[in-house]
This record gives sequence, C-alpha cells and structure tokens, in this order.
Amino acid sequence: MIRFNNDYSEGAHPRILEALGAINFSQNAGYGEDEHCRAAAERIRALAGQPDAAVHFLVGGTQANATVIDAALRPHQGVLCAETGHICGHETGAVEATGHKVLPLPARAGKITAEQVEEYCRAHWADASFEHYVQPKMVYLSLPTELGTLYTKAELEAMRAVCDRRGLYLFVDGARLGYGLAAPACDITLPQLAALCDVFYLGGTKQGALFGEAVVLRNDALKADFRYLIKQHGGMLAKGWLLGVQFEELLRDDLYFRLAGHADSLAERLRTALGQMGVPFYVDSPTNQLFPILPDGVLEALARDYTFTETARVDEGRRAVRLCTSWATRPEHVEALIASVQALLT
Amino acid sequence: MIRFNNDYSEGAHPRILEALGAINFSQNAGYGEDEHCRAAAERIRALAGQPDAAVHFLVGGTQANATVIDAALRPHQGVLCAETGHICGHETGAVEATGHKVLPLPARAGKITAEQVEEYCRAHWADASFEHYVQPKMVYLSLPTELGTLYTKAELEAMRAVCDRRGLYLFVDGARLGYGLAAPACDITLPQLAALCDVFYLGGTKQGALFGEAVVLRNDALKADFRYLIKQHGGMLAKGWLLGVQFEELLRDDLYFRLAGHADSLAERLRTALGQMGVPFYVDSPTNQLFPILPDGVLEALARDYTFTETARVDEGRRAVRLCTSWATRPEHVEALIASVQALLT
Amino acid sequence: MIRFNNDYSEGAHPRILEALGAINFSQNAGYGEDEHCRAAAERIRALAGQPDAAVHFLVGGTQANATVIDAALRPHQGVLCAETGHICGHETGAVEATGHKVLPLPARAGKITAEQVEEYCRAHWADASFEHYVQPKMVYLSLPTELGTLYTKAELEAMRAVCDRRGLYLFVDGARLGYGLAAPACDITLPQLAALCDVFYLGGTKQGALFGEAVVLRNDALKADFRYLIKQHGGMLAKGWLLGVQFEELLRDDLYFRLAGHADSLAERLRTALGQMGVPFYVDSPTNQLFPILPDGVLEALARDYTFTETARVDEGRRAVRLCTSWATRPEHVEALIASVQALLT
Amino acid sequence: MIRFNNDYSEGAHPRILEALGAINFSQNAGYGEDEHCRAAAERIRALAGQPDAAVHFLVGGTQANATVIDAALRPHQGVLCAETGHICGHETGAVEATGHKVLPLPARAGKITAEQVEEYCRAHWADASFEHYVQPKMVYLSLPTELGTLYTKAELEAMRAVCDRRGLYLFVDGARLGYGLAAPACDITLPQLAALCDVFYLGGTKQGALFGEAVVLRNDALKADFRYLIKQHGGMLAKGWLLGVQFEELLRDDLYFRLAGHADSLAERLRTALGQMGVPFYVDSPTNQLFPILPDGVLEALARDYTFTETARVDEGRRAVRLCTSWATRPEHVEALIASVQALLT
Repeated sequence: MIRFNNDYSEGAHPRILEALGAINFSQNAGYGEDEHCRAAAERIRALAGQPDAAVHFLVGGTQANATVIDAALRPHQGVLCAETGHICGHETGAVEATGHKVLPLPARAGKITAEQVEEYCRAHWADASFEHYVQPKMVYLSLPTELGTLYTKAELEAMRAVCDRRGLYLFVDGARLGYGLAAPACDITLPQLAALCDVFYLGGTKQGALFGEAVVLRNDALKADFRYLIKQHGGMLAKGWLLGVQFEELLRDDLYFRLAGHADSLAERLRTALGQMGVPFYVDSPTNQLFPILPDGVLEALARDYTFTETARVDEGRRAVRLCTSWATRPEHVEALIASVQALLT
Repeated sequence: MIRFNNDYSEGAHPRILEALGAINFSQNAGYGEDEHCRAAAERIRALAGQPDAAVHFLVGGTQANATVIDAALRPHQGVLCAETGHICGHETGAVEATGHKVLPLPARAGKITAEQVEEYCRAHWADASFEHYVQPKMVYLSLPTELGTLYTKAELEAMRAVCDRRGLYLFVDGARLGYGLAAPACDITLPQLAALCDVFYLGGTKQGALFGEAVVLRNDALKADFRYLIKQHGGMLAKGWLLGVQFEELLRDDLYFRLAGHADSLAERLRTALGQMGVPFYVDSPTNQLFPILPDGVLEALARDYTFTETARVDEGRRAVRLCTSWATRPEHVEALIASVQALLT
Repeated sequence: MIRFNNDYSEGAHPRILEALGAINFSQNAGYGEDEHCRAAAERIRALAGQPDAAVHFLVGGTQANATVIDAALRPHQGVLCAETGHICGHETGAVEATGHKVLPLPARAGKITAEQVEEYCRAHWADASFEHYVQPKMVYLSLPTELGTLYTKAELEAMRAVCDRRGLYLFVDGARLGYGLAAPACDITLPQLAALCDVFYLGGTKQGALFGEAVVLRNDALKADFRYLIKQHGGMLAKGWLLGVQFEELLRDDLYFRLAGHADSLAERLRTALGQMGVPFYVDSPTNQLFPILPDGVLEALARDYTFTETARVDEGRRAVRLCTSWATRPEHVEALIASVQALLT
Repeated sequence: MIRFNNDYSEGAHPRILEALGAINFSQNAGYGEDEHCRAAAERIRALAGQPDAAVHFLVGGTQANATVIDAALRPHQGVLCAETGHICGHETGAVEATGHKVLPLPARAGKITAEQVEEYCRAHWADASFEHYVQPKMVYLSLPTELGTLYTKAELEAMRAVCDRRGLYLFVDGARLGYGLAAPACDITLPQLAALCDVFYLGGTKQGALFGEAVVLRNDALKADFRYLIKQHGGMLAKGWLLGVQFEELLRDDLYFRLAGHADSLAERLRTALGQMGVPFYVDSPTNQLFPILPDGVLEALARDYTFTETARVDEGRRAVRLCTSWATRPEHVEALIASVQALLT
C-alpha cells in the first residue's frame, strides 16, 4: 500500500533524527526554556524579518489553533473563517470547547475575501441588537488552504486592511506553510506574510519534523502571558527542546524549503500527468495537495494499492479525492500512481 | 409610539400581578422548593400528559437553552438546529460558551426536516475521520419557529423517528409555545408534542408572565442533577416561588391559551388586512409574528409611530420586517396600524 | 413556621409592587435599554459619586458574580477570595464553569487581608514555574461577608493598595451591601467604597426588591462590551425595565437604606437579647446575619417553629446556626424567637 | 551543571531512538490507528491483566489529566484530590479550563485517605443545599505522589470501597508509575492497581520515552467516544505511531521497570548517604524523588554545580528541596552530589 492520503505518513527527515540523537544525553531545562528553543526562535525571527516577535513551539496544529484563539479572544468574541477551514470542521469543536464560536463564511476554493469580512463586520455593527450576536474579532486563514490553494499578496493585503479597519486579529494557520511558500505560484515571501498578520505558525509535522508547530506572535497584545495558555491547553512539552532541536535543524541550510519544494514538484508532476490524461480537478491547487475527479470504478481499483482521502461526490459516477505528496514522497511512487491511473482510464 | 417589534413590551397580565401581590408577605422556601412551584409543576405535568416529567422554572429563554443543552451533552457533542434558530445567532454564543458547537442546517421558513438530520448523521458516521468532527447528539427546534411558522404533527413524528434511530435528543424551544398551540393552523396538541420530545419548555415571558420559562424534562437521562445545572448557570432564582406563582395563575382557567389566542387572532386580522392591500409576506406564518414586505418609504413613514424589527432586505426598494402581536396588544393599535399602512400605500 | 433562615423569604416592599403595577401596560424597549434602567443607573452613579461608572442590572448574584469575573479575566487568570466566599463554595462551581479557578485564602471571620493577597502574589511571581500556576488577577470580597462581618475602611484601603501594586482587580460582592452600609459599626460610605473598587454590586434581591443586582463598573477596562457578556451568561432580562423600576423605587427617599436599617436594628435586638442570656456567638457580626451557638436540644426544639441555617458544629453538644433578619422581618417575630430561646435555655 | 531538578532532563533510552529510526520511512495510518499503537495497547492490557481495557496514547500528563477528567464528569461535577496533587496547582488550571472544579483535600505526605473522601461525600449529601455545591464524582490520586510517596494496597482498596459506595470514579495519575511499582517499598502490582481503579495512566515521558502517557480505561462508561475527547483537547498526535513505537519498546524485556529500578536504587543510595550525614527529610519518600532539608548556605553552594527544585522553607535557615533521579541518571553524578554535600556539611 502506497500512501497519498496525507503528508504525515512517515517519521522525520533523517537529519532530524540525527540531531535528536546527537543531544540525547545532554541535560536540558524543561518546558521550552532551553538553548535549542531559543536558537530556533531566533532563527525564525530572522527568517521572518520580525526581530520582536515571540516564538513558541507546540506539538500539533489543533493545539496551536485552540491556544492562539483562546489567548486572543474575550468570551463573547468569535473567529471568522472559511467554511472549509480546519478549525471549522476538523478539530472536534476544539475552538468551541474554549467557549468561542467559529463564524464560518462561504468559501471559494477554500478561500474567503476581505469583502466578505468587511460585510460581516458591517452587518454586525449595524444590527440594533448587535450585543445578542457573537462579536467578530479575528480572521483565521490557512496558507495554503485546506484545498491546497494560495492567497495572493494582494488578497492578504486587502485582508490586513479590513482587519485594521475593523479591529480584527489576522491569524494564519501555516501547518503547510512551506508547501505554500515553496510553490512557484506563490507571490509572497515569509517576511511579507509575517508583516501582514498578527500571528501565524510555521508547520513542522507535515514538513519534515516528527512533530511541531512554531507559533509566531507579532502583535504585542497577543504575546502577554502566552506560556500560561500553552500550559493550560496541555501544549507545554516537558522536553521542550525536542521541538527546538527539530526546528533548528529544519531551518538550517534551507532544508525546510527544499523539502517543501520536493513535495510541490512531485505534486506538479502528478497534476500535469493526470491533466494530460484528461482528468479534471475539483479545485485548481498549486501546492502539494491535489484533488482529481475520477470515476468510482477507477477509485475502487486504485484503493487496492494506494490510499487517498474522499473529498466530495461530484456526480453520480465520479468523486473528487485528495492526493498529497510530502517531503518524504518517493518519485517512483508518483510514477507508479500515474501509470496505474493511466492503465485504469484506458 | 406603538410597539409591534416584539411580544414582550409590557409587564404581565393583571392576574399575575394580583397573584404576586396576594402572597407577597407569605414566607416561602427559596430556590424553587416551595409549594407554588410544586403546584405549577403538577399542573404542567397534567396538561402535558406526562406524570413523570421533571419540571423546572427558569427566568429566561437563553438561560433555559444553555442549561438544557449543557446538561444533555458531553463535551464533544453538538446540537443540530435551523440556521435561523435562536441558539444559532441570537444568544451571543451562549451555547458555545458552554463548550458545545451549534451545528446549523439550512432552513426553509425557519424549519428543518427529519431528512436533513438523517443525512447529517449518516455523513458523520460514514466519515472515516468522524472523531475529528463534533458528534451530533441533539436536535433543537423552535415551535413556533423564529419566523412564526409551525411544524406539523407529521413533521415532528418524523423528527422523533430519526432521533430514535440516531440516538439524538429532541429539544423543543417553546418560548412562544402558546402562540403556536393556539393557532388554528396548528395540528398538534400539548400532550402530543410532549410525548414526542425529550425536553421542551413552555414560555411565560412572551405570553403573559413578567418572566419565566417552564422546562419539562421527559427523558430520565436528562432529569438527573438538573438543579445543580440550573444553579451553576445562574438560573436558580432565590425567590423561586415568583415563577411558580406566575405559572399557577397562567395555567388556571386556560388563561395562558386564551392570551395566546388573543394575539394570534389579532395577527390574523393584520395579516388579512395587509394581504387585501396586496402586501406580500416574506414567509407564510400562522402565529403571532408576521413578516410583511414593504417599500422602504412606507417603512420609514411607519417608523415615526410604530416600532418593528428588520428581518431582511428583499430587493433594492423593499424590506421584510417583523410585526408581533402579543397577549397585551390592543385591537385599536392593530386597526391604527392597518389604517396607517393603507394610507401610505395609496 | 417563622423563617429566619435567610433574608429572601418574602416578596418585595409594597412600593416595589406598586411601581411595577403603575407601569405595567406602558410599552418599553427591551433588554435594559429603557428609561427606567437609565434613570436608576443615573441615580446609582450619583449615590456612589461615580459619574462615569457603567451600571447594569442583573437578576441574581451568582449570575452577577460569574459574569463580572468572566468579563474581567483571561483564561489563565483566577480570582482570590476567602475560603468562605460565596463564589468559592455556594454557586455550584459557576466560576469554574467559565474556566477560571477560584483561589481560596484562609479566612478569619469571613475576611481576608491585604497581607495575604500580597503574599500570594509574591509567591506566585517568585516561583520559577509561575506559568504552571493560575495567575492571580482579581480579589473578590463580600461586604458584608458571608459571616455578616465588615471590612473597615482601612482594610479596604490596604486591599486597594495591594491590588494597585500587583495589578489586580478589586471586586466587591454587595448582595447585602445595604445591610453593611446601614450598620452602625460600618465606617465606610458608599462613595468611599465605590472609589476603592473596580467593580461592585448593590444587591436588591435580599433588600426589598423582588430580585435584582445593580453591577457598577468603575474601571474602564471592565466596561467594554459588558452587555455582550450579560447576554451570553443568560442574564439579560427581556423585560429589563422590571429591574430599572425596582431600583428607581428602592433608591427613592432613601428606602433602600431605611429597609436595611430596619433589619440591622432587629438583628441588634436579637444579638443583645441572646447575649444577655449568655449565648456565645460563632463570629462577632454587626449586620443582619448572626451566628449564635446553641445546644442541639435547643435547636431541635426551635426547629419546630422557626427555620434557620446550619453553619458549623462547634463541639459535641452545640452547633452554630445562622439567623437572618431582613427588610421584611416583623419585630414580633423577633420577640417570639427571643422568648422561645429564653424558655428553652432555662 | 548536573541536573537533579526533575526526571525529564534527557531525551530517551537509546532503544527508543533506535526503534523510531527503524520505522522512520514506513508509512503508517495517522492518529493512533496504526499497528504499533495496537500492539502497544495489547501489551499494556496483558501486563495490567485487563483484557477489555481501552488504551490510548497521549503526549503529556497535563493533557492526559484534563482529557480524562473532562471525559468523565458532567458540568456540575468535580474531582477530589490532595491539595498537593498535580492537577490542583501545577497545571495552570487546566481542569478548571474544562469547567470543572478541583476539590482539594488536606494531604499528609502527598496522600489523602478513604476516610477524607467518605467524609467529604457525606457532608455534601447531608447539606440541605447540596445542589449549590460542586458534586464530588471522581477521586484523583498520583502514584507515586508528587512527594514521592506511595499508597499501600490496603489504602487503595479502602479508596476503591469508598468510590464504589459513593459512586465516584477512581483515577490514578501514573506519570511516574514505574518508579512507584519498581520501588521495594511498593506492595502492589500493576494488575492489582489496574483492578482497583477506573482509569489510570502509565507514564512514558519521565521514564525512558521521549514523551508519551498511556491512558488505560477500565470502566466502560469512560471508554465511550474517548477519541473525540482526545482530538478536542489537542492531544491526538498526527503521527500517533510515534507513541505506539515507544511504548512497544519500553515494555519489551521489562525495560520500563528496569529503568525505573535504576532510578529508584540511585535515589536509595542518595537517601542513605544523606541520612548517614544526618540530613533530615521533608517527607519519607521511597521512590525516585527525595526531599532533603538543608541549610541555605549549603543549597547556595550546591546550586553552582547542581540543579534542584525548591519545595518549602522549613525554618529560618533551612529549606526542603526536591532531588530526582531518573532512568538516565549516571551513578557518578550521584556520587559527586554525595561528596559535595558531605564536603559542605563538614
């Protein structure tokens, strides 16, 4: 069985394991107050061009999302996001469990617009009974989105502008940020992105680490007491340096972006090959996730040798599925999949 | 200014005030453990044909909704409701504040169907990652709905059937239950309704009491420890007998339903009169709320003498508004409004 | 049965009922946005000497406590209080239900000291792992306390000073504030108290109203969006004017303080009489609650005609009980109780 | 600097790293649904003699505690624990953040008794206003305790009996369970312990793994839907097999208990040596944590070369500190510490 169902089916890049092994018997301060976390945070501040940002390392994405949102919002405030956003449907209500409502907006290809956010805020504040509704206070975006698509620099600038106008925080979920930034179609750099949002994170779990997400807090209001929140949410790893060491290594020699580029180019190879066979796509995604539409029979046959995720039924005979490449995907597996689809379609 | 914007603009029916006055200096046990609450609960059990139901009196609807839902659900469970449901948008996220996600379904005229609930549950349990989603565990309906419409007996029976099949609680918000049951278009009785749901409440605030909602718990699983929940939610009135006395009086001599009938028939008078003038309606509602569509100019002129609530912009020149009659509405005010609209439309 | 077990066994002062009756058919805006709430708030601002304070009316004390605390604290922050404080043990964990830990301090006669608060904060911030502990951010006091005792002006000034030094909010639960301020032993005025705390409330439920607590927010940081919080906590009464009307009336002609004085002087009469019989007291309380220590046999006999609350077992043969007088207590009932105790003790 | 301040200052036993390396490029199903988790769970069920137990792997202890407690309790229920219990003071209110009150009991040497639990329950149910208090529903114990002490088999049996009598869940925090079970003073086996509690966990983080705690649910009522709760709490590791692989390896060839025995015997060596120097102990702890009382001057001097944790000031000149040994402690470090103390004391 060859797995294309997600981008976290393997362990970590060998350099990560080596780095962990190398310091295994060094004694470290716990809870992220060690030199590795400090060095990794420094590296991230430099790469992001944000010398004053606070950087914290958490184990996973759901934890990072819930902790950031809970830290930022007062009880009556909610977070706007695409109806396809990860916090909206894939985290067992982790945001609601902290007491906050997720306010979903209709999405196109996984994206929402500054205009939608503006209109939502306008309507909120125009309602005579506005205090009877959850107050919008944050915008949550994923880059790339859950459908593999990208916001353009102009779209993000417009989103920033509406957030400034309406007093909203802009939070970018970067669980797959590398796959986004490394994509040729991406027109924004890490420093440009960092400058536009109040908080974002740089994902490790899906991009070469065993686990780990680096949360970058740029807005001073969000920095205060953040470590208390991490601890309360069960996200303060006792051996915090395990996270620091991994990010140190990932961000050395551009490894993080090279691994992302590997996945993106294999996805591009797959996309092109499927396209040439006439396979349509559910959404036009330029990163490591792709969503071909295939006949049920083809999918059943493929399922004997490959794993993939169900995305949507498109019509009576066809479904869209998700295929992911990753830092660990082997080119021969991609070629095998291409050959299999080819064989099944002809 | 004559108020048609809601059905709680006046105090209480004079008999309620008299009853409160009559026992003002009697000493009572606190927190609902008095003889008035006991008698009122007994009366409700009899009227509902539910001799084993637990009955509790709470001050208001948002409190009743949040307390019932919080009492019923485990942390990972959510409540299905119409996207127009009161808990979905009008209670400042009170349900989410207890940690539970409200799961909105597209509504038609304020109503959802058994088929929608079945499909939602089917999709939940069919998803390989179902544990990553909030588990549907309760259906919340309003009777009448927030748009003044009614579920038929057949619709409620179908809903009960899907709830049984899928292990869901059925919770009916009866903040305006009297206005529903008293409407000629209503084809269900209180005992029939009570037998179909796990929990419902009988609203007093909008139907002749100063305040108060009587929560009726039929399902044994929901009865356990409910008073702890009321207290924790800040809903246990120190002088609980104030609620008992009001419901005792409201349910004596059929007062509750006669007051509701008064409101419904004035609404019918208004509906007919507006219809005869050619005024269209946003929704066909047979109870005490009506939603005429009127030109902006007419609404502006009306707003000088009458209050009403904005419901929706229908097109560039017209809006739907909500008009409510109530137990306290004076027939001459309805006639005045009819005359005013007539004058403005001609 | 004559009730001395609490100070909320009767309805309301007749003037309250009259005032409610007088405006019963006036139409009002809902949710506290009416002229009665406005006038009552204005009156409270004047009495408290706080022209910029925000005043909101809530139905009950548990609701007021949870709403204020939830509005003030971030998720990792807790509230210091006496171990005997109402929020600590008598509200079914309503504060914890909002996610915040109550941090109890050992109390003497229901009171805590500025030194205790200072020491708690010092220890918190001195701990190398301080982020692993709930951060103290608020002090909650009751005036009078749950044991009927009073803080002196000097004690409150010292508490204010430590709150300023440590960045804490000072919140005074005034469910029985009138009974405190009207007591001869009280050395602080309402304006002096108001000037010392960030938020307090003026209780109505126990002091002549049917129900209602007036929350006074002095600190700007606490004022923002408070109405959203009230709604979310289920505390926004639809017919909010019912609260405004009651406080308008209570605060007219000094009625509130005269009613409190009535209760305090009857308590004093009872205290003196019991003292003359040699009855010891569990605590020396100068307000409307008193805590005599009586033999079990006497208490059993008394329980046939009077209600009281168990406070503590003092030794094998004696218990301390709570007796309350109230605005409604009849002098002849106090005399009857005195006579009964006298008869039982001799 | 040699670290004795905790038992998680190093990475993992080399066999753990080897095992992770060996399967690094194998593709696995995510979220704990892989064969390694299955095998490790099976091994734990066998070791614990609980063939029907549900076993789940979480990253850390705070997460495990909050998830178990949140899964088990209804909103009005709380958890009894020693005032020194980890959930009471060291987890930034993580339990309260889920809405539940921690109900602390006075502890002796970190332990509470069945009698205390019985008395708490008796008092709760005897109070006429019991619904105004948080309902006790769970007992939380740590084995060994936060002070390194052990419950005896008889004490645990008594606790089980009171839990049965009072309808409480018994939850044992086993973050250091191995250090407890491996101690010569321990008179209980893993199967005996497992049979006595409703849920417990077997800690990995402090006992040879990089991280990880294995939660064992014995009571059917706690098993239902537990994975939803893990996900909601941000505890569902995407690469769940990283946990399975570690526990598989730890539990092979008795490694887990041998590592624990190593730590316990080094602690015993240290305890004996310090005792021979006349050093008193704050508590008599037979596991890998010890709490010597030393003069301030000695501690200051030691702090130049060793880390330890402050526990309590004992008198004006002396403090109790915590020293931990671990699976990774080197005997020569223990000897060095002994020599240093010896030199400073003479």
